[in-house]
Amino acid sequence: MPMTRDHPSYRLYSARNTCSLAVHICLEEAGCNYDVVPLDFSRNEQRHPDHLARNPLGRVPVLETSDGNCLTETPAILAYLCQVHGASVIGGIYTPIEFARMQAFNSFLASTVHVAHAHGPRAYRWADDESAWASMRMKVAENMLSLFQLIETRLAPGPWLFGDRYSVCDPYLFVISGWLQDDGVDLSLIPRLVAHRERMLERAAVRRVMADQPRVFASH
Amino acid sequence: MPMTRDHPSYRLYSARNTCSLAVHICLEEAGCNYDVVPLDFSRNEQRHPDHLARNPLGRVPVLETSDGNCLTETPAILAYLCQVHGASVIGGIYTPIEFARMQAFNSFLASTVHVAHAHGPRAYRWADDESAWASMRMKVAENMLSLFQLIETRLAPGPWLFGDRYSVCDPYLFVISGWLQDDGVDLSLIPRLVAHRERMLERAAVRRVMADQPRVFASH
Repeated sequence: MPMTRDHPSYRLYSARNTCSLAVHICLEEAGCNYDVVPLDFSRNEQRHPDHLARNPLGRVPVLETSDGNCLTETPAILAYLCQVHGASVIGGIYTPIEFARMQAFNSFLASTVHVAHAHGPRAYRWADDESAWASMRMKVAENMLSLFQLIETRLAPGPWLFGDRYSVCDPYLFVISGWLQDDGVDLSLIPRLVAHRERMLERAAVRRVMADQPRVFASH
Repeated sequence: MPMTRDHPSYRLYSARNTCSLAVHICLEEAGCNYDVVPLDFSRNEQRHPDHLARNPLGRVPVLETSDGNCLTETPAILAYLCQVHGASVIGGIYTPIEFARMQAFNSFLASTVHVAHAHGPRAYRWADDESAWASMRMKVAENMLSLFQLIETRLAPGPWLFGDRYSVCDPYLFVISGWLQDDGVDLSLIPRLVAHRERMLERAAVRRVMADQPRVFASH
């Protein structure tokens, strides 16, 4: 599938219900020319040599630029989109301090919150025996609730994570908070987060991306 | 302890043998005016209300700027130092693509490599029973070796992670690779990494910081 659209163009390697959705939303918010290549994790497509050449960890998202660079790691891709498409993705120019705050939140999502969630579906990464996996799964809801109660305090006064300023942190939070129900977290305990999800779903770009998800993944 | 030195000044909240050392090295490389406040984890000082006000997660590093901002999360702090002190920390100006590559590596260290290590000393974060902790500890050496074998391929041709260009990724890698021996990893399997550590220890800024560690932590 060649990249045929006008410059700048991107190709997003994606998988259903993963962090790649945050990048997808940002590409749509920025009005980028891009296409999406869905990988089917149930068929282990992320371990295909072609994909390992893009990301040796065999993970998504990978954002391929028109000049052939393969960018990895959600916080790094979101920072890149901020730098290149600033105003259209994040609604303005940020000072280094503000940029650091955005980066800090995204890094917290990646290295603490996402990791806490992953101990449910991917406990096998960190232990070999099934009883340990069960122990890890049992603690996921408690850890996720505790982390999201911290996030809940950050969502006042809203409407976005950084107040009036919508940023790349919002779609990233949106994706990870979409896992909470399966994680066993009682959403009634984090009402600002629930309201944040509803506000995200009202955004035109988010609606377009969510409507596109069945098509994007239909062939797999 | 007031910040009395000339602008710009920073205060680094630090703890022995943690990622705060990477920030400490970068501050020294950049010739910043800064002081270091060591926290003693064995006395649980990171959970003191004063520190939780700086970082609700109760972690280090926290970098306090002279105007009172408390920056958290190692990748975000390193990106901030790149933006503010660019040439002196990272040896030049980076394009958004190059910046994204640095960020991707730091994000990988934070959310994958550091997390793999943490399942040794901090397994209690992800399970409540001791047998699960033992299972997690048993897998640390295997996971860390596997990740550092990936990093080993990134260290050719060297001398630094991004070839001739020393960057904030190098001290961050230096800190985390300093944990490998305790993690039970056979360093003879990753000779480029060992050479990278030796090169780091030859840098004047690194020698000054390492020599300062006993003093910095002496009062605790």
